[in-house]
Amino acid sequence: MEGAPDGDTKIAVILLSGGLDSMVAAAIAREQGFVLHALSIDYGQRHRRELLAAQQIARHLGAVRHTELALDLTGFGGSALTSAIDVPKTGLTADIPVTYVPARNLVFLSLTVACAEAAGAQDIFIGVNALDYSGYPDCRPEFIASFAETARLATKAGVEGRPFHIHTPLQYLSKADIARECARLGLDPAWSWSCYDPTDEGLACGRCDSCRLRQKGFAEAGLVDSTAYAIHE
Amino acid sequence: MEGAPDGDTKIAVILLSGGLDSMVAAAIAREQGFVLHALSIDYGQRHRRELLAAQQIARHLGAVRHTELALDLTGFGGSALTSAIDVPKTGLTADIPVTYVPARNLVFLSLTVACAEAAGAQDIFIGVNALDYSGYPDCRPEFIASFAETARLATKAGVEGRPFHIHTPLQYLSKADIARECARLGLDPAWSWSCYDPTDEGLACGRCDSCRLRQKGFAEAGLVDSTAYAIHE
Repeated sequence: MEGAPDGDTKIAVILLSGGLDSMVAAAIAREQGFVLHALSIDYGQRHRRELLAAQQIARHLGAVRHTELALDLTGFGGSALTSAIDVPKTGLTADIPVTYVPARNLVFLSLTVACAEAAGAQDIFIGVNALDYSGYPDCRPEFIASFAETARLATKAGVEGRPFHIHTPLQYLSKADIARECARLGLDPAWSWSCYDPTDEGLACGRCDSCRLRQKGFAEAGLVDSTAYAIHE
Repeated sequence: MEGAPDGDTKIAVILLSGGLDSMVAAAIAREQGFVLHALSIDYGQRHRRELLAAQQIARHLGAVRHTELALDLTGFGGSALTSAIDVPKTGLTADIPVTYVPARNLVFLSLTVACAEAAGAQDIFIGVNALDYSGYPDCRPEFIASFAETARLATKAGVEGRPFHIHTPLQYLSKADIARECARLGLDPAWSWSCYDPTDEGLACGRCDSCRLRQKGFAEAGLVDSTAYAIHE
């Protein structure tokens, strides 16, 4: 978290949730030569574990800055991730999941644009991917494209001819592909955190949708997930 | 702030800053038959006065709910409204002002969509207007139109055929027109607050860009602004 980029170095703002996907997206940004400015949003998650993972990832990837922004969305209600609705453990479905947070990526990307504009950065990385966008509308490529145009119109930078590039390097990757990228980039999967419902002992539950998807991805890729799970299905 | 709307009543979420424009936009929404759900964003303003005005307006207009959301943008830097840069008092200019907050309306409208989706509302009111959009890119009609399409793509409601309607009833009004609407709707101008730089005694300074615009508007309309100003130019 030390040092500042020189004049030729391009800064990218990475929306770092602390999950596997955002970690891999951040490492891809670094591989492409960007200096990382991580942005994590504390949106009233039921578990601080995800934000601790984001701090760990930012440190391991040598981010020059890590902004943590508090945004209490619990007052809006409407999602198992921020309120008291039970997280489902009945397996994966094709519908929009109850863990959907209203307009989450619209809000988070907007904040990322504000952060990038204030930092003088034009490049934004976000770890949305194909597996997500069947369930979450704000992970689909058509949303990202429309958002980029709206962000251009919304900002001084955009109006002055410096639009934002929204990079989605995981857009068409499966969870198994992402697990392979994680290994290729030399990342320890355990730096990241995916579980929606950790045990009292602080282990990933191994049963929520997010744990299942992750375990399935590593299994399909024939790779080991070093995360400590309460159960491994 | 009491009571709940019946089944036939449509709720509109109004982005209520506490300024004159948002007050008039809220009253127009009410006149059109909407029940008001006010949303105010505490974004690290240097003065809480604006939020107190928003509370006052919500009460006077009989809002059924008023959500105050804390969002500390001071960590991003970049604006006289949230950081220690001096507010200019050198008169109005055509350039993007230093009071520009990076991507503010993009962020605020995104939060309003999240609030509306969680509340099951499809209608959103925002008091952007012609005077602003010469200086602030995120007040222009082309931004609003692009944002509405992005919001449709971003949300469960939009995907399921219930897109959001972004109402901008002041879009083409001058400040004098807005002062006239304020009088026509029976609103007391002093419920609202526009000053960027109040005196230690809590009076509007009468010298910042926002005070000047407001005073000029009332003067052009031949109306009295009941606000207590330190000086009146």
